[in-house]
Amino acid sequence: MTDMDVDVVVVGAGVLGVSSAYYLKKNNPAKSVLLVERYGDAGQGNTGRGNAMFRDTFTSADNQILAGSSIDFYLHVQNRLGVDVGVDLIGYLWLMGEKQFRAAGKHLNKMSRNGVRHRVMGASELRRKLPELATSQRSEESRLMQLEDCAWGVLGSKCGRLAPEKLVRFYLDGFTRAGGSVRFNSSVEGLMVGARRSLGIDGEPFAWQDASITGVKLAGGGRIRAETTVVAAGAWNNSVLDPAGVDGHVKAKKRQLFAVRARSDSRLQNFMLSEGFNGSGVAPFIILPHAGIFVKPVKESGEFWIGCDDDLNRPFLSYPATDLEEYRAEEDFYDKSLYPVLTSYLPLFRGKRPDRMWAGLYGYNTLDNMPYVFAEEGLIVVGGDSGSGVMKGDSLGRIVESVYRQGERSEAELFGGRVYLSSKLGFASRDVEREEWVL
Amino acid sequence: MTDMDVDVVVVGAGVLGVSSAYYLKKNNPAKSVLLVERYGDAGQGNTGRGNAMFRDTFTSADNQILAGSSIDFYLHVQNRLGVDVGVDLIGYLWLMGEKQFRAAGKHLNKMSRNGVRHRVMGASELRRKLPELATSQRSEESRLMQLEDCAWGVLGSKCGRLAPEKLVRFYLDGFTRAGGSVRFNSSVEGLMVGARRSLGIDGEPFAWQDASITGVKLAGGGRIRAETTVVAAGAWNNSVLDPAGVDGHVKAKKRQLFAVRARSDSRLQNFMLSEGFNGSGVAPFIILPHAGIFVKPVKESGEFWIGCDDDLNRPFLSYPATDLEEYRAEEDFYDKSLYPVLTSYLPLFRGKRPDRMWAGLYGYNTLDNMPYVFAEEGLIVVGGDSGSGVMKGDSLGRIVESVYRQGERSEAELFGGRVYLSSKLGFASRDVEREEWVL
Repeated sequence: MTDMDVDVVVVGAGVLGVSSAYYLKKNNPAKSVLLVERYGDAGQGNTGRGNAMFRDTFTSADNQILAGSSIDFYLHVQNRLGVDVGVDLIGYLWLMGEKQFRAAGKHLNKMSRNGVRHRVMGASELRRKLPELATSQRSEESRLMQLEDCAWGVLGSKCGRLAPEKLVRFYLDGFTRAGGSVRFNSSVEGLMVGARRSLGIDGEPFAWQDASITGVKLAGGGRIRAETTVVAAGAWNNSVLDPAGVDGHVKAKKRQLFAVRARSDSRLQNFMLSEGFNGSGVAPFIILPHAGIFVKPVKESGEFWIGCDDDLNRPFLSYPATDLEEYRAEEDFYDKSLYPVLTSYLPLFRGKRPDRMWAGLYGYNTLDNMPYVFAEEGLIVVGGDSGSGVMKGDSLGRIVESVYRQGERSEAELFGGRVYLSSKLGFASRDVEREEWVL
Repeated sequence: MTDMDVDVVVVGAGVLGVSSAYYLKKNNPAKSVLLVERYGDAGQGNTGRGNAMFRDTFTSADNQILAGSSIDFYLHVQNRLGVDVGVDLIGYLWLMGEKQFRAAGKHLNKMSRNGVRHRVMGASELRRKLPELATSQRSEESRLMQLEDCAWGVLGSKCGRLAPEKLVRFYLDGFTRAGGSVRFNSSVEGLMVGARRSLGIDGEPFAWQDASITGVKLAGGGRIRAETTVVAAGAWNNSVLDPAGVDGHVKAKKRQLFAVRARSDSRLQNFMLSEGFNGSGVAPFIILPHAGIFVKPVKESGEFWIGCDDDLNRPFLSYPATDLEEYRAEEDFYDKSLYPVLTSYLPLFRGKRPDRMWAGLYGYNTLDNMPYVFAEEGLIVVGGDSGSGVMKGDSLGRIVESVYRQGERSEAELFGGRVYLSSKLGFASRDVEREEWVL
């Protein structure tokens, strides 16, 4: 391809990229904004490989704001603007043992103070509403796995699922309608680094020059020069940033999902249609009391999606790495790591095997489990959302735009008029509450 | 090799590894401690490739303590114990423009309050003591490079050079004398991860089990089981930790040194023997006012070692990577990035080219430029020293030992009796002052 010049280039058309591009173009209509994506459409990377859930039940007040106002916006888009983004407030049901629940007390109090709506359910209510749930764990196997009785449930109500492919389409359409350009099937292999005050000498920047990011290099040799480069490649941020010597503050590892079909099983079908949790007549998203194992009901496909938050022993990936390995789910993981716990709490899954399975990459910020938006000369980086890009995507896109227009110390206006100090998500003067409820 | 069991295995015989191993064995004589090193001797990796300087002139009070008490210990070893570790207090001379000096004011005040000895020199004193220094930068070339007049010098006096190969030998000898074992020429390719409460099932740990580090895997297939694994592989920490899913909080990049021979040049020889800075009758370690370019006099080899702090545009390295590329210095870098600034401030270097050059890896902690010591179940990690492992090695080894014996929240006793709260260097409740003077 031929080289080109733009005001802003955005790398990555996942949810963070399309949201950023949308607000950049919308609020700066005179600027040329180009979105570059390696795949043939938006949301084809890790945005489309996650469980597509959202919640505001975070322990970190920053996350409560970032997710809460994003969710409000998605509800606004669907209910006011009439654009279906698949939002369904099925709720998050966090199941807990006695000890876990006591430890959660301070977090629940804070959520109440901060307007994060949730309701506590005791074991008897849980048994009544979810008769298939084995709240008591007294078997030898449960004892060996150190499973606790399921004593409490916390139901978050401004929580649920959405359709990532519809959400990215909403932003992408808005972006192109506002005059933004998109280049699909274009892999960014690194950043262009130039001298802030170039002398036109070959080989710049030299160590005695202040350097700045001046655009992106495409695989195949093309160059896109840009005044500002926004890197929103999620778990792949390192592969774009490392060659330029910028620390992306993110580590990537594989996460897997296993879909069990309910259609041929009446017990599973009834469980899918559990009442009393939401207005949708469907079971909530359930987090079991052990190892962050979760069960997501997907009514329209008649599936339960099952996964967990595995941590130690799951490698962080080096770059460049092949897609193949990273995006391959391991059946063995379902059998050995999920199944024993799943069937102890929900015996109706006994004998059930996944009909399909897939994997994606989480971009972890292990420092505080919080997303970041930081700026260097000519560069803005967003990421580290640790699997919560979808649910915080609107806020993070607005913050990226605010940093672009007013610098890292700007006050970003989130949906609903809430103001958020952008520099809190940076690194120079990072000031976020660490998140304790990680999934 | 056959598998083996030890109480503690230490990975890496660089300065952080040998210091940690020394204090671990010395203070826990009943424990078996094994030091594992990929090369054939200690200090053959990046410890031996740096400029081997030490200073206490840090802006961070934490660094002042960590380096200050390590330097006191090295002086004690050499002057009281009579073991030559090559310590020579030649001083650090930080040259500054007017603006830089004004910005440094608050740091210098803090150093004074905290007992970090330094002396401020004006331009006339600098010209008198270093007649070869061009304090005035009015040429067209200097203007283009935005070089400022050299208006001030700050001389740190508890600063100087040491011999890393002698220092690591001191710790290694002490370690083996105390009964510690060493295995050279053994590459660690990853950590063993086991279940904290093993059920003896093949494939452990599963996601429902609490995992812990249970030893190291060697290239070639050997296993060393250990109750505690200490990873002190410096810039290589990621290559050991990533496969186990532990974030090493470090990014590695190449740093280079260029040695210019003074022997055949009387001006350079006289400059080498500049008086009035220290008791050694040699020029101090000089940091020029631009781009962190430094000049180290090495009297016994009649060389000046020249390098700089290059940042953006110098790639962070992926793992695994070949030694060849990383340890190759680029002559072009001397010519284009160092030479123009070097010869503007020190014209006597005009026409001089490096006789030899080499490179090593810095293990950066870009978060706060400070070292870390953190623990996970069965694991202690030390690193992120950002090129200052030699000058903080004694303190960090003592802190590792303290974390081993008493946990991450222990109070470590540094040399001279100073107590340092270990958890400040961890990540769970990290509490260190960011370092602003990075070289």
